[in-house]
Amino acid sequence: MNEYPSKTLQEAVEAISSLPGVGARSALRLALHLLRQPKENVRHFAESVAALADDIHYCSVCSMVSDGELCSICSDASRDRSIICVVESVRDVLSIEATGQYRGIYHVLGGIISPIDGVGPSELTIGRLVERVKEVDGKVEVILALSGDVEGETTSFYIYRQIEPYGPKVSTLARGLGFGDDLEYADALTLGRSITNRHPFKP
Amino acid sequence: MNEYPSKTLQEAVEAISSLPGVGARSALRLALHLLRQPKENVRHFAESVAALADDIHYCSVCSMVSDGELCSICSDASRDRSIICVVESVRDVLSIEATGQYRGIYHVLGGIISPIDGVGPSELTIGRLVERVKEVDGKVEVILALSGDVEGETTSFYIYRQIEPYGPKVSTLARGLGFGDDLEYADALTLGRSITNRHPFKP
Repeated sequence: MNEYPSKTLQEAVEAISSLPGVGARSALRLALHLLRQPKENVRHFAESVAALADDIHYCSVCSMVSDGELCSICSDASRDRSIICVVESVRDVLSIEATGQYRGIYHVLGGIISPIDGVGPSELTIGRLVERVKEVDGKVEVILALSGDVEGETTSFYIYRQIEPYGPKVSTLARGLGFGDDLEYADALTLGRSITNRHPFKP
Repeated sequence: MNEYPSKTLQEAVEAISSLPGVGARSALRLALHLLRQPKENVRHFAESVAALADDIHYCSVCSMVSDGELCSICSDASRDRSIICVVESVRDVLSIEATGQYRGIYHVLGGIISPIDGVGPSELTIGRLVERVKEVDGKVEVILALSGDVEGETTSFYIYRQIEPYGPKVSTLARGLGFGDDLEYADALTLGRSITNRHPFKP
């Protein structure tokens, strides 16, 4: 006998527990929950997930997830095409969009340069970014919005070297204490950088 | 613009966040994880879940989930057909099977009598249980393995009244302190019952 009296149930539990952060017990709980739902709901759930494999495209300009050739940001006429924000992943675009503070366009690298993980520049969309900068004769601002760790800094530096010859303005994210953070609870690195990078007080 | 730049992604996130205990942020994390997987894995995942709607049957004898007409327990010749353990749900069968201590067969009620939730005896498989007892002229032991709350007790009592005329042996689960439990941390009800239901010490 199997661990479960139904192979169908067993396979569903195994599939669900392959998700990150979902253990065998949670997977069983979720599978039994789905079993109790109307069949149409379960089919709709499965189809929505299958669509991630079958219907997702990546924007031919910025590599953001998209339903078609161009993503909704690149095809939005109201976005400012003179600023390209370079990020590691789709998730980063969603995070920046959620702030409502950015009206430019994006470039999704699809990862970060990491020799340990075997990710070199050619695995990323850096070549396409260089093309984008060349296409506008360098008349663009490129914001390097990558993480502040060694790999992020390495990738930022590599990209800077690649695009710099074409003359774009290159900027990076402000780093320092979070708004509302207490000095007491800030990590020493962040607090130290906040002091080093202090700027004039604007009352 | 939508919250997400892709309708496909948005629908997958919405579907995933309909699962119990999965919030919008976790759902996005899981959807983005699936996006990074090979397409075949995502399709396999979706198909395994869809099978919960399309390929799951319920055993015609005990109502356990099954791949066919009879579940793997009812069709297992080595199981003891003289003991029927009555449980509320599929999950309870899995819990008891996991102990490896029970070799009888089951009867899954599909719920518990609960007037507040509008669940009466006719919504459950109690009629089929009575038939099973009649079919063997009452020559069977029925273990009422329902929860110890008011609804569980009510359901146990109702079932007892229905099957008792046919003469089966009716038993229920032992309750008391868990093995390895400290008296100090036991709840008062359990500890009290453990004292009331004390039995001779067998060294």
